[in-house]
Amino acid sequence: VSPQAQHAIAEREATLTKPAGSLGQLEELTAWLGGWQQRATPQLEHVQVLVFAGNHGVVAQGVSPWPQDVTAQMVGNFRHGGAAVNQLARVAEATLSVIPVADLRPTADFTTAPAMTVPEFLAAARTGYDAVPQHCDLLCVGEMGIGNTTAAAALAATLFHGDSLLWAGRGTGLDEDGVRHKARVIDTARALHAHSLTNPLEAARHVGGYELAALLGAVLAARHAHIPVLLDGYVCTAAVAPLGCLNQQGLAHTWLAHCSAETGHAKLAAALGLSPLLALGLRLGEASGAALAIPLVRAALAYHTGMATFAQAAVSERI
Amino acid sequence: VSPQAQHAIAEREATLTKPAGSLGQLEELTAWLGGWQQRATPQLEHVQVLVFAGNHGVVAQGVSPWPQDVTAQMVGNFRHGGAAVNQLARVAEATLSVIPVADLRPTADFTTAPAMTVPEFLAAARTGYDAVPQHCDLLCVGEMGIGNTTAAAALAATLFHGDSLLWAGRGTGLDEDGVRHKARVIDTARALHAHSLTNPLEAARHVGGYELAALLGAVLAARHAHIPVLLDGYVCTAAVAPLGCLNQQGLAHTWLAHCSAETGHAKLAAALGLSPLLALGLRLGEASGAALAIPLVRAALAYHTGMATFAQAAVSERI
Repeated sequence: VSPQAQHAIAEREATLTKPAGSLGQLEELTAWLGGWQQRATPQLEHVQVLVFAGNHGVVAQGVSPWPQDVTAQMVGNFRHGGAAVNQLARVAEATLSVIPVADLRPTADFTTAPAMTVPEFLAAARTGYDAVPQHCDLLCVGEMGIGNTTAAAALAATLFHGDSLLWAGRGTGLDEDGVRHKARVIDTARALHAHSLTNPLEAARHVGGYELAALLGAVLAARHAHIPVLLDGYVCTAAVAPLGCLNQQGLAHTWLAHCSAETGHAKLAAALGLSPLLALGLRLGEASGAALAIPLVRAALAYHTGMATFAQAAVSERI
Repeated sequence: VSPQAQHAIAEREATLTKPAGSLGQLEELTAWLGGWQQRATPQLEHVQVLVFAGNHGVVAQGVSPWPQDVTAQMVGNFRHGGAAVNQLARVAEATLSVIPVADLRPTADFTTAPAMTVPEFLAAARTGYDAVPQHCDLLCVGEMGIGNTTAAAALAATLFHGDSLLWAGRGTGLDEDGVRHKARVIDTARALHAHSLTNPLEAARHVGGYELAALLGAVLAARHAHIPVLLDGYVCTAAVAPLGCLNQQGLAHTWLAHCSAETGHAKLAAALGLSPLLALGLRLGEASGAALAIPLVRAALAYHTGMATFAQAAVSERI
C-alpha cells in the first residue's frame, strides 16, 4: 500500500463539498483502492472477475443434493453467458473469466485421504496465480463446485476450531438432517487429519479443494501485483483464510464484498477481521456477491474524482 | 401491486440456473420492482433522482454548524454537477433533478410557531407531487437543507415518542454538546405543539419542513402512478413516515436504500418496518444513499431477465 497515494487522496477528500466523513465506507473504499493501486487518482478501467471451478471427492459422502455433473454444466453455462454472475458482471462493466481447475478432476475424498497431494495443491494454486491479468485495477474472485461448502466448512473449522455445526450450512439446499450429516462428515475429516495439520497451507491441502487452492493463489498474485481484491462468499473467504492466518496483514489488500446467508460466513469474516460491504442474503457463490459490489467501488471512485471542491463551487465551509 | 406480474416473475425465477432463493434480497427486489411496475418483465429505462431543498427557521436556535446560505449554494452545486449525488447518479445512469421548495424561504422557527401554515404545507407537498415524472421506472428521493436533521428528529420524536436524544444526531457535524442542545430545542418544540398534533400530517406541518413536505408529496405521487421508490436517509425517512403512520401499507411501494449513520435512523426504519439494502455509514443526505442502491436494482433486473433456464443451459436439477 502506498502512503503517498493515500495522503494525496485524503488531502483532496478534505476539500470536497460535503461534511468530513459523510460518505462513510465509500471514503474508506477510495483510500483502499488508491493505496493498493499506488495511484493518487485511482482508476477502474480493467475490472476482472475470476471464477474458479473444481470438483470434490467428498460428494461421495452425500453432502450435496445436486449431482457432481453440475459443476461442468455450470462451467458451460458461464461460458455461454447464462449464469447469474454473467449478468452481474455485465452490468458492472467487468470482464468475466471461468477457469476449471485440475480439469475438474475431483479431489480425493478427504474423509479417507488428504484432498490433494503436495504437487496437486501447488499446481492448483499456480493455476490461480497465473490467472490474474497483468493489467487489472480491481480483481473479483469467486468459485463454483458441487460439494465445496463442505470443503470450506472443513477448512474454516480446521483453522478456527469449534463445533463443525457452527461452520456447516445448507449449501445449495440441504435440510436440517442434511446439515447434521455434513457436520459429521467434517468431524470425520478433522479427526483423520488432526495430526497432519501443521500449518494453514497444509490444512488447505488436506480438507480444501482445487478451486479453493486456485483462489488462494489468485489472491496472493494480486498482492504481489498491488491489485485490490473483492472477495465473494463463504467458500472464497475460507479459501483465502490461510493467507490471513499466516500473516495478520495477509488479506489487507482484500475487501469482503458480501456476507453470505451461509452458516459460518459471518463468524469466519469476524475471525479474519473482514467487514462486508453488503449483506443481502445471497448464498450462490460464483463471485455473485463480489460482482454486486463493483458498482460501490465505482461510486467511490466517481464521487472522489468528480466532485467540486468548496472553492470551486463557492460553498461556504462550516462556521 | 400486481399479483399477476409477481406470479409471472416467480414462475420464471424458479426456472433459472441457481438454487432456489440463492440470490436473497435481489430476488425480493425483482418481485417488488415488477409488482409495483405491474410488469411481468420489469424495466429500468427511466430512473429519476429528485433532491428537494428547503430552509429552516429553527437554525436560529443554533442547531447546525453550517450557515443557512449553504442550502442555496448547494442547489447551485447540484445544478453545476459538483455534488456527491451528481457523481453517484451519473454512474448509476439516472437523471437528477433538484427542486428548491418554497423558493428556499425558511419555515417558521418551530420552537415558537408551527413550521408551516396549512396552505404552505400543502403547496410544498404539491411541489413534490408534481415533480414526479409520468414516465419513471424507479424514483429515488432525497433532500438538502441546513437544519433539516433537527426537523427530521422532531418529526420522528413526535410520531414515535421517546427521549429526543434518541432521535437527535450529529447532523453535518455537531459535537456532543451540540447534540444535547439540539435535543433540548426539539423538546421545546414538542412541548409547544403537543396539543396541536392531532394526526401525522399535522405533525409534519408543525415540526417538519418544506423539503420534507415535498418528499411526502413525491412518494404519494409515486404510489398513485405505480412507481417503486428508493428512500434515502434519515430526513427522507422521517419525511415520509406520516404515510406509514396513516396506513400500514402506505410505504409498501418504497424500499429503504441505506441505513444512515445518523442517530435515530435505524430506530425509525424499524418503527416503520423498513429494512435497508445498504448500511455503509453514509450520513450525507442529498439522495446519495438512494443513488448508491440503484445498481443493486439494476443487478436484480439483469439476472432475472438475462439468466438461462435449467432447460436452456442443459444443467441438471437437484436430485
